[in-house]
Amino acid sequence: MTNKQMLAFSKTDLFAAHCGCELLDAGDGRAKARMVLVKEHLNGAGVVHGGAIFTLADFAFAMASNSHGTLALAINVSVSFMKAIKTGELTAEVEEISRNPKLATYAMRVTDESGDLIASLQGTVYRKKDRLPEGQA
Amino acid sequence: MTNKQMLAFSKTDLFAAHCGCELLDAGDGRAKARMVLVKEHLNGAGVVHGGAIFTLADFAFAMASNSHGTLALAINVSVSFMKAIKTGELTAEVEEISRNPKLATYAMRVTDESGDLIASLQGTVYRKKDRLPEGQA
Amino acid sequence: MTNKQMLAFSKTDLFAAHCGCELLDAGDGRAKARMVLVKEHLNGAGVVHGGAIFTLADFAFAMASNSHGTLALAINVSVSFMKAIKTGELTAEVEEISRNPKLATYAMRVTDESGDLIASLQGTVYRKKDRLPEGQA
Amino acid sequence: MTNKQMLAFSKTDLFAAHCGCELLDAGDGRAKARMVLVKEHLNGAGVVHGGAIFTLADFAFAMASNSHGTLALAINVSVSFMKAIKTGELTAEVEEISRNPKLATYAMRVTDESGDLIASLQGTVYRKKDRLPEGQA
Repeated sequence: MTNKQMLAFSKTDLFAAHCGCELLDAGDGRAKARMVLVKEHLNGAGVVHGGAIFTLADFAFAMASNSHGTLALAINVSVSFMKAIKTGELTAEVEEISRNPKLATYAMRVTDESGDLIASLQGTVYRKKDRLPEGQA
Repeated sequence: MTNKQMLAFSKTDLFAAHCGCELLDAGDGRAKARMVLVKEHLNGAGVVHGGAIFTLADFAFAMASNSHGTLALAINVSVSFMKAIKTGELTAEVEEISRNPKLATYAMRVTDESGDLIASLQGTVYRKKDRLPEGQA
Repeated sequence: MTNKQMLAFSKTDLFAAHCGCELLDAGDGRAKARMVLVKEHLNGAGVVHGGAIFTLADFAFAMASNSHGTLALAINVSVSFMKAIKTGELTAEVEEISRNPKLATYAMRVTDESGDLIASLQGTVYRKKDRLPEGQA
Repeated sequence: MTNKQMLAFSKTDLFAAHCGCELLDAGDGRAKARMVLVKEHLNGAGVVHGGAIFTLADFAFAMASNSHGTLALAINVSVSFMKAIKTGELTAEVEEISRNPKLATYAMRVTDESGDLIASLQGTVYRKKDRLPEGQA
């Protein structure tokens, strides 16, 4: 799928929009997305919630793994949290590290504005044969 | 901390509230929370977003790991997604499976209303000596 | 497969034998195995190597996931190490927590002789349609 | 620690030696190790056992995380298996992706002789203040 098609598809992700995730770029197994931090992203300890960080990465993971035009469903993800953050902007970058007809695995990095690593993730999808919905692809 | 203190503390988690997470019960290393599903929880494939499922579990994980009264920070979480879901309600239950003065590990199960397993997670926290904020504990 | 068939199949695992893994029981998605600790299981810090603990669990995971009679290949495993151990015996118990025609997920616990949790693991397999080799099943 | 000190320290890992792991290079948070495959590395399906692949990576992970001269203990590791292999040689390369005084996280890649990715891992250690044993450092 083209970057333009991926940007259109990304708009159909209601939870990502609700959490302030924005796709910057996607295609050919990779994706980049960002989240401008606001107080709704904070947890009870006053730092950005692990769920917000995960959601940004998972959104970019979905865009990367669906960029081949067929439906990919996440099987598992492991996340390591490196550093707490309170304000600014997060960027998630996703790279495909392996792919066969049934399974594909992705490395994801979430960084802050100074480039510090906030979280590192690895996830695998099961690749279905279904094409992505017409209007979305 | 008492269940009442934990319910008060849970209200200070702005991202959890933004995502519709509600604490049902917490204390002594365990917690239970729920999420009533609405269309804002869906992804581009029309099913509940992995980020929403993770956020519910991570919220309950934070409540369980902070229930001893000292600050606990997530180091890592691994999640396996078993089944897609579109509507209804999700419940996350968290149980402490090990704890020493520095580290503690938790098992988390997210189920739907019929009790089917939607996701299974395992996560570890680093336990700081800081007490939770006065007003919150 | 019957417990007897599984015990025969387990003998064909050369690496498990090399590491001192012994199947105690298996069938219907579950398995139990043990490892009597000797000095060859220790690492440079003088405690049992994470690779030895993982191997015992992974061996039982393979027995549990292959117990339905069709070939199952591990996609991913996450392991948390709780406690160091030097001598005695380890037991791994594996339980199936979900299964569909393509994927299945297992929870694994490794304990010492006093029942203390040494490691907790979760893993997912891809289920092929191939039957296990005749002589082994 | 110098590469020479690390090579000496690696020899004290009895389980790694038992499994045929050999350290090629280590220092400053990174390490590289190899395993020449023999039939004792195979599982019941006739391919290299996940436990053998994990052990090679975990050995290199230990060398990388102990290369700063203080004792590091693995808290958790997640592994994704990409491709089955039967013969030849495996190489594990470990890179430090974050480190603070208490915790450090490492990315690990296991490849075959043609450079294909066999497994990808991520793991975190807890860093103790203890120096590594004199004779080993």
